[in-house]
Amino acid sequence: MYAIDRDPLLLTPGPLTTSLRTKQAMLHDWGSWDSAFNQITRTVCEQLLAIAHGEESHVCVPLQGSGTFSVEAALGTLVPRDGKVLVPNNGAYCARILKILGYLGRTAVNMPIAEDQPASAQAIEAALIADPSITHVAQVHCETGTGILNPLPEIAAAVARQGRRLIVDAMSTFGATEIDARHMPFDAVIAASGKCLEGVPGMGFVIARRSALEQSAGNCHSLAMDLHDQWAYMQKTTQWRFTPPTHVVVALHAGLEQYAEEGGLAARVARYAGNCRTLIEGMAGLGLRPFLAPAVQAPIIVTFHAPADANYRFTDFYEAVRARGFILYPGKLTEVDTFRIGCIGALDEQDMHKVVAAVGATLQAMGVAVNG
Amino acid sequence: MYAIDRDPLLLTPGPLTTSLRTKQAMLHDWGSWDSAFNQITRTVCEQLLAIAHGEESHVCVPLQGSGTFSVEAALGTLVPRDGKVLVPNNGAYCARILKILGYLGRTAVNMPIAEDQPASAQAIEAALIADPSITHVAQVHCETGTGILNPLPEIAAAVARQGRRLIVDAMSTFGATEIDARHMPFDAVIAASGKCLEGVPGMGFVIARRSALEQSAGNCHSLAMDLHDQWAYMQKTTQWRFTPPTHVVVALHAGLEQYAEEGGLAARVARYAGNCRTLIEGMAGLGLRPFLAPAVQAPIIVTFHAPADANYRFTDFYEAVRARGFILYPGKLTEVDTFRIGCIGALDEQDMHKVVAAVGATLQAMGVAVNG
Repeated sequence: MYAIDRDPLLLTPGPLTTSLRTKQAMLHDWGSWDSAFNQITRTVCEQLLAIAHGEESHVCVPLQGSGTFSVEAALGTLVPRDGKVLVPNNGAYCARILKILGYLGRTAVNMPIAEDQPASAQAIEAALIADPSITHVAQVHCETGTGILNPLPEIAAAVARQGRRLIVDAMSTFGATEIDARHMPFDAVIAASGKCLEGVPGMGFVIARRSALEQSAGNCHSLAMDLHDQWAYMQKTTQWRFTPPTHVVVALHAGLEQYAEEGGLAARVARYAGNCRTLIEGMAGLGLRPFLAPAVQAPIIVTFHAPADANYRFTDFYEAVRARGFILYPGKLTEVDTFRIGCIGALDEQDMHKVVAAVGATLQAMGVAVNG
Repeated sequence: MYAIDRDPLLLTPGPLTTSLRTKQAMLHDWGSWDSAFNQITRTVCEQLLAIAHGEESHVCVPLQGSGTFSVEAALGTLVPRDGKVLVPNNGAYCARILKILGYLGRTAVNMPIAEDQPASAQAIEAALIADPSITHVAQVHCETGTGILNPLPEIAAAVARQGRRLIVDAMSTFGATEIDARHMPFDAVIAASGKCLEGVPGMGFVIARRSALEQSAGNCHSLAMDLHDQWAYMQKTTQWRFTPPTHVVVALHAGLEQYAEEGGLAARVARYAGNCRTLIEGMAGLGLRPFLAPAVQAPIIVTFHAPADANYRFTDFYEAVRARGFILYPGKLTEVDTFRIGCIGALDEQDMHKVVAAVGATLQAMGVAVNG
């Protein structure tokens, strides 16, 4: 079907390309009651907690399902039923948090921001001062809809100064952007297995402030998503409450081993930053411009303006680049025609050069004007 | 650590031992937006629907998470907020449904039944006649807490006669016990990837009556668990709403291929029945008695009375049998000391003979009196 003899590389924000070693970890079956498996769960949770430097203040609660399940679980468990949540909104994943809060019947305050602008700690602090009834801020760290990085340290400080609580959707940044519980106050940071830790998708996790979690019994709207119940059961039994995605857990365990061997956060940041720089420079050589200004671009996923050429159609472009061995990602903006290319996963700068070459050759073959 | 050079076999009700071919399907990464992956999702859903003969009347909606997530999703989506649910209750998974309904704020009617007795279609019908405000019956097919098979065809007929709606937790029976939507009226049958279809855990699915699902918009308490929203999005885009557990989906796809090659439902029923018979006969030879009468024993998992001997302790027994290469399962009864052995997974009668031999040798080594 394709003119390549390997799997296409995923230039997507998760699921992403994982190492063979990570996938080979799934060649074994594990009993969910067995202590060997539950020791793996414990190790994974300890390592995730350590990445956020939360050992003294926080706990790690894993949850079955996609990352969105964990976002809903954190909001449903940690925001009391009479809570009120401010949502700085510069994209699709912020909008999803607003949708979840609507389902949960929690009062939400939408704070709209242009999609190419980061959230402002100053504006958030002003909103908290203006409305003392706001109890929580729900902040997306990197809004994957565009790839914009919101200034989390400043936002966390502002929220803490106003005595409110912070819940962070760090889905696409955790492990590849500094998040330090010792200096950055938060009640929850949420991420998932299949993102920058380079596991496979199927579980999320919440780094939750222990004291906040302890006070959250009875808040949750859902048995499956009750993080307090999940945590209490795991404390008591060492086991997951309901059947864990065993193979996904052992793949994440393998991913975390490789994360440590590579050099941890600093090495992961450096590799992804190199990937991002190589990609943007290479695409510039083809005349393709990023949607975001460099200062607010996270090294996670880059949104590019689609070529302004009548011969360009995304689906044709996608299939042709795929045939050359690379899977891109569609844009998620309603007003501007874009496509996205991820910088994360088991990829290096050589891979990014090849992606750029494949994009260039594809546009040429499609008769789309490029500068390359 | 163990005196064996292969992974221990899982004699558990899921996660269970899967074939190497199923696990090897996870050695590839897939893009969640990519049509090649979404074609796999479609094929899996079509095959699941066909197993229940629901092509004319039902749809298959897959969901991320464990089977319990799908049970909660089905109850939350298909039972209106003013619905009232009768729960024939002969075990732990029935009790879990009651707990879920409590979270959801749906009125529940607990119908307690002794744990060694099946639910009675006659008693259910009488309860429905006595209380016309009951809208739904939530029935566990095989209560895995004991391994008892509840008489689903008779219960489905009784519920339909009374004009009520049936939701079936068929977690541990789907694919290995006849469930035929053409002759057995139900609004939902719920199961999961890592049970009798011999995939790995990480996704559930609901075979939902199309007309009931179409009327369910706005019922659900949760965005992540809104089956109507999941289905509508998938119809429109062919994609999962939120990141799918890609490797789990392709493993289930491989499991379903092998299911068809083995001979489908009839072959799976026959193999598990043979496993169960071999197990019970072999254990009888050791003097170990099943908790249930043969007439109500499902060929899924068998609960055995623990040996009445002071030298017996489950955890020691478990570890010693594990060292011989077999992972058993603890009992789930509060009043009677038991343990459980599963009959499902990529196992055959030869494996069951070996399990029995390992149990016998272990009890002998522990100094527990046996008849073997």
